[in-house]
Amino acid sequence: MPDSKKIFLTEAESPKQWYNIQADMPNPMLPPLHPGTKQPVGPEDLAAIFPMELIKQEVSTERWIDIPDEVMDVYKIWRPTPLVRAYNLEKALDTPAKIYYKNEGVSPAGSHKPNTAVAQAYYNKMEGVKRITTETGAGQWGSALSFACQLFGIDLEVFMVKVSFQQKPYRKMLMNTWGAQVFASPTDLTQAGRNILAEDPDSAGSLGIAISEAIERCVTSGDAKYSLGSVLNHVLMHQTIIGLEAIKQFEKAGDMPDIVIAPLGGGSNFAGISFPFLHKNFTEGKNIRCIAIEPASCPKLTKGEFRYDFGDTAGMTPLIPMYTLGHNFVSAPIHAGGLRYHGASALVSQLLKDKLVEAQAYQQIPCFEAGVLFAKTEGIIPAPETTHAIAAVVDEAKRCKEEGVSKTILFNLSGHGHFDMAAYADYFDGKLSNHQFTDEDLKSNLQKLDTPKID
Amino acid sequence: MPDSKKIFLTEAESPKQWYNIQADMPNPMLPPLHPGTKQPVGPEDLAAIFPMELIKQEVSTERWIDIPDEVMDVYKIWRPTPLVRAYNLEKALDTPAKIYYKNEGVSPAGSHKPNTAVAQAYYNKMEGVKRITTETGAGQWGSALSFACQLFGIDLEVFMVKVSFQQKPYRKMLMNTWGAQVFASPTDLTQAGRNILAEDPDSAGSLGIAISEAIERCVTSGDAKYSLGSVLNHVLMHQTIIGLEAIKQFEKAGDMPDIVIAPLGGGSNFAGISFPFLHKNFTEGKNIRCIAIEPASCPKLTKGEFRYDFGDTAGMTPLIPMYTLGHNFVSAPIHAGGLRYHGASALVSQLLKDKLVEAQAYQQIPCFEAGVLFAKTEGIIPAPETTHAIAAVVDEAKRCKEEGVSKTILFNLSGHGHFDMAAYADYFDGKLSNHQFTDEDLKSNLQKLDTPKID
Repeated sequence: MPDSKKIFLTEAESPKQWYNIQADMPNPMLPPLHPGTKQPVGPEDLAAIFPMELIKQEVSTERWIDIPDEVMDVYKIWRPTPLVRAYNLEKALDTPAKIYYKNEGVSPAGSHKPNTAVAQAYYNKMEGVKRITTETGAGQWGSALSFACQLFGIDLEVFMVKVSFQQKPYRKMLMNTWGAQVFASPTDLTQAGRNILAEDPDSAGSLGIAISEAIERCVTSGDAKYSLGSVLNHVLMHQTIIGLEAIKQFEKAGDMPDIVIAPLGGGSNFAGISFPFLHKNFTEGKNIRCIAIEPASCPKLTKGEFRYDFGDTAGMTPLIPMYTLGHNFVSAPIHAGGLRYHGASALVSQLLKDKLVEAQAYQQIPCFEAGVLFAKTEGIIPAPETTHAIAAVVDEAKRCKEEGVSKTILFNLSGHGHFDMAAYADYFDGKLSNHQFTDEDLKSNLQKLDTPKID
Repeated sequence: MPDSKKIFLTEAESPKQWYNIQADMPNPMLPPLHPGTKQPVGPEDLAAIFPMELIKQEVSTERWIDIPDEVMDVYKIWRPTPLVRAYNLEKALDTPAKIYYKNEGVSPAGSHKPNTAVAQAYYNKMEGVKRITTETGAGQWGSALSFACQLFGIDLEVFMVKVSFQQKPYRKMLMNTWGAQVFASPTDLTQAGRNILAEDPDSAGSLGIAISEAIERCVTSGDAKYSLGSVLNHVLMHQTIIGLEAIKQFEKAGDMPDIVIAPLGGGSNFAGISFPFLHKNFTEGKNIRCIAIEPASCPKLTKGEFRYDFGDTAGMTPLIPMYTLGHNFVSAPIHAGGLRYHGASALVSQLLKDKLVEAQAYQQIPCFEAGVLFAKTEGIIPAPETTHAIAAVVDEAKRCKEEGVSKTILFNLSGHGHFDMAAYADYFDGKLSNHQFTDEDLKSNLQKLDTPKID
């Protein structure tokens, strides 16, 4: 093995600004629409649930946004994260490809999510917010925001998708340890939750339902704000610290990726690692392939429709121009809870529509196979979400071998799987199944939608 | 906050040798004795259970032992580990003390244990060993050796103390993911286990019992070797990479600790961080205080007797000169399973007897209080074992405030608590209790021993 498996940046070398891709997109994204008027939403429409600084970032077209010192100080707990060369995985695959991963699992919450959680908690704190509501799927986001709110002295209520609440009890305890209250969604605390429970008392919940509950709780409380862990522009922008660090690290290593791969739920970890490389494509004429990997059981990018849709189940959010399976879509309860979301962020959706990024869908069993191979070679147990990226990396590396070409592949190790060991146990016990829908099923779900189409 | 919260070493700056304190101890430790003959054991007595290279290291008086390249290559997955300044904890305590921690929780298995697991797996592999048996208390050691055996292609059987097996199901799944077989000890697979179960079918197990089972399984199989995660000289030596890295990092930071603190179960993480600083005391006339923290429910260093005793319950190991509560002592089932061991390593015991290191005992509730304070300020959830060090650090830092002096305190963050969240839940639910024995109870347990006394 060469001398450096890990490429570190010092804290002094850390990027000091986030990258805002809205400054560089060939086609800007379409405006989000007010759910009632169907007119573009203005900042004032969002002021009830978000602090003003985040609303400004949401619509900004400034290319670079300064990271506040207070946020940088918290980032220093775990950032810059290591860029690691997966020599052992390369060897196991006998591939000429060079495989690197950015290890976002080293954060206190165990994933990339604190990159935006810390920023959001900070801006809320600056505007005097005392309480925040949010939702969480697999629990990664809820954990990250619990950690961040704790550091800034803000109370937090988390609506956790019930199936994850049951699958991952340690996640709840983690959030409690950081001082958050956690509810299994759907709850009877909100009208949105009660409506769902009236139809199906055994509802396993969904991210869309949990979002409805968290927003309703925020709006009806009068004194709380709401926070979202993916999808929105400002969230994706906060995550670009990942790719910006990676570029500096590749420069140190004297290399640069040909392919960048990340799992996609709402879009934030994919955006975080890929947008800074797209900036290179836009401004330096590079042609770095950026591939989002989604679960075959929730294939909005590869089988969904590009149209306006709600971000939540009850239809409380603005209408967002996105690839979607329909806001009423409830994914099969695969273990990658963070990927069970019906839509993709507007930014990623526009980039996909313009063929500036790619998308692929994977079944969960081959993903766990790849995750176990990674654990056995590189030592780290990846989160189920992350295994989706690894499965695609393995396929790309095998393709390099078949074609006899050496490509440099980077993937985002978006989180560790320490709280997902039950999923691995199910995999080893043969209890997992792959999920598939017919195109007709998906089409019929989309046909029920009455949200605006896009030509 | 100043620019650097974390002090990193590059892989090229990593120490390339382990430190063997046997070269420098003012009084050498007494020899281990054969359990039958009561004569000093020779290398041939250990050859049935350990590979020869580890036996050589066990008795070596060479000051520096080269780390093999193959071991360094695996260390690079997570080493060098960061040295981190706990600014937020300092602020919360309003102390003039400077607090640093060495974060061993970043290893794939989540603790310091892989430092020796990788070395042991490597030396076994070099001597053609195909199968290893071991025990584990809280599961940290079993996880680490599973990870290491997986990388070197060795089969592993783990006897896990039953109370931990039940408290920490995810630990078992983690070991399974790395390919190990895990049994809840006492089992009916060994005579030692069957004897215990005959007396008490509901036995919660102990590290001493699990060691007996693992050794018996090794000896009766004929083709396996045995591996121990603490106590022995070579194990402690492999851990010195922690302190050796820390010294280089402190030199980079322009600082050096006045006090070094670590939890103590068998002694390996305490030795790992403190022995290189003791080397400074021995050779540079420094006076760095090294303090081992044990649980009040298993207080061998502060309430035990310095005498010969067995390392295991059934009396299969050599007799070791150690501070002990008696090899038949079964600790209360506190959550810090890694600290529930009846004795301390011979090296640490001799150093304590010679007043070259110190020891303190802590109850578990104040330890969890300190652990939660750490999680809320520094973001990282520490393992229950590690909270013992943190409780002592907090007390030292408060003393600095009372006395108006600034000391530099280093502690070993020996592991994260991701697999111990049930313990935190019990703490928050008020289900934990402190445990205390009367001195008479401990004395009467020691009086039952028929192992040789030491004047």
